[in-house]
Amino acid sequence: MNTGVWAKKAQKEAKAFGEVVEVASSADANYTFIPKDFTIPADADYFHITTNNTIYGTELLKDLDSPVPLIADMSSDIFSRPVDVSKYGVIYGGAQKNLGPAGVTFLIIKDELLGKVSRYIPTMLDYRTHIKEGSMFNTPPVLPIYTSLMTLRWLKEQGGLKAMEKRNIEKAGLLYNAIDNSKMFVGTANKEDRSRMNICFVMQEKYKDLEADFMKFATSKGMVGIKGHRSVGGFRASTYNALPIESVQALVDCMAEFEKNNA
Amino acid sequence: MNTGVWAKKAQKEAKAFGEVVEVASSADANYTFIPKDFTIPADADYFHITTNNTIYGTELLKDLDSPVPLIADMSSDIFSRPVDVSKYGVIYGGAQKNLGPAGVTFLIIKDELLGKVSRYIPTMLDYRTHIKEGSMFNTPPVLPIYTSLMTLRWLKEQGGLKAMEKRNIEKAGLLYNAIDNSKMFVGTANKEDRSRMNICFVMQEKYKDLEADFMKFATSKGMVGIKGHRSVGGFRASTYNALPIESVQALVDCMAEFEKNNA
Repeated sequence: MNTGVWAKKAQKEAKAFGEVVEVASSADANYTFIPKDFTIPADADYFHITTNNTIYGTELLKDLDSPVPLIADMSSDIFSRPVDVSKYGVIYGGAQKNLGPAGVTFLIIKDELLGKVSRYIPTMLDYRTHIKEGSMFNTPPVLPIYTSLMTLRWLKEQGGLKAMEKRNIEKAGLLYNAIDNSKMFVGTANKEDRSRMNICFVMQEKYKDLEADFMKFATSKGMVGIKGHRSVGGFRASTYNALPIESVQALVDCMAEFEKNNA
Repeated sequence: MNTGVWAKKAQKEAKAFGEVVEVASSADANYTFIPKDFTIPADADYFHITTNNTIYGTELLKDLDSPVPLIADMSSDIFSRPVDVSKYGVIYGGAQKNLGPAGVTFLIIKDELLGKVSRYIPTMLDYRTHIKEGSMFNTPPVLPIYTSLMTLRWLKEQGGLKAMEKRNIEKAGLLYNAIDNSKMFVGTANKEDRSRMNICFVMQEKYKDLEADFMKFATSKGMVGIKGHRSVGGFRASTYNALPIESVQALVDCMAEFEKNNA
């Protein structure tokens, strides 16, 4: 399923080793939605999804039923909600959003999916190597792993993934509500597919030429990293687990103040 | 060239993609020396060496002349001495000995060696990808990279690699001298191939049954991690760049005290 740049990359790499069928895509709509009506070919080796699309601000918040092994890149929304792991063949990703600092990756795989490749896999790239060696085939990235352990303990202290999901719904709801009640700002993603991790919005047509002014104003108010990706434009607020609701409130206040002064 | 476990691993991976010729090996002598008399086939695609062998305490301290591209795993002795980089086609390794914390790797490659593989290389494994993207194709391991920068600055402050080599010669010399003048301890590696990074020694036959006692005594004196690898036995003192000469002196004193009390 093609839902953006990360899904495309997974397609590209798969093409080198087999036939890729694009089951569904929102490319024609600049990836503003998650496709709903599609049929997964029953003879496919696997079905690959990217659950959260950082650039476009869309997220698949449902654990899909798939007739073939479901492979999910959860780099940017792992641990943001409880997931029915049993529905997935593989869950994989980079740690650097909700788990730990950059430099370590995670993988959850069903035993039955191992050892199915007949071509030679370099030792380092064979999941079985790392399972057998307890993730210590090579000297592991100790600092990022230790920090991930600290994050997991913190997650438990916060009440676990149920509590984290509740908090993420509140945080995202606060900002989306402000966007929807604004005359100046408008969200870019299809409402029912909105991401709780990356909230993308632009200026309404009428106020388009105020974007640079708002960026300057927001920066003066201490907002960091809210510039949208160049392929979407506008603004993007990332609300990963580590971000407290107070930070979201600060952005909402900042938007309201700017709108009051400039609308 | 087969000088130990890391060299063997490089052979194993290469075998999956081509014919491997073992030009020289010290396997029959449990890797206690670096082979000297060998001829590199002029039609080989490359010649692979491991410059320092952590387990056996041997090191190739000369930049070899090779008729074919010389590929060197310098994981455990990079930055321990000045190297004539122009003699190597590729220098590669993990950072975690002399450069930075585990989780980042380094690679120095000659431009002319790029793009010579006709089979498909996954994007992530193609050196050209990382060169083109300035090592930021993926989110890089920020903490290990930053710490490596700090280490490189520290190296410069110390006087650079010439000063580092001088210091490493002093450190290793201090310990090897103590071993050679001891009636109790004996080095395991061939003298002319002794590593400046990993100094391996055992008890003389006569004192073999005192090894456990010495380990206990050394531990009580604050020595950490001096147990030798199981394939060599005895003791191994790692004297990487970060280790001050005072630590080497402490081990030398500890050995002398134990010998005085027990010989």
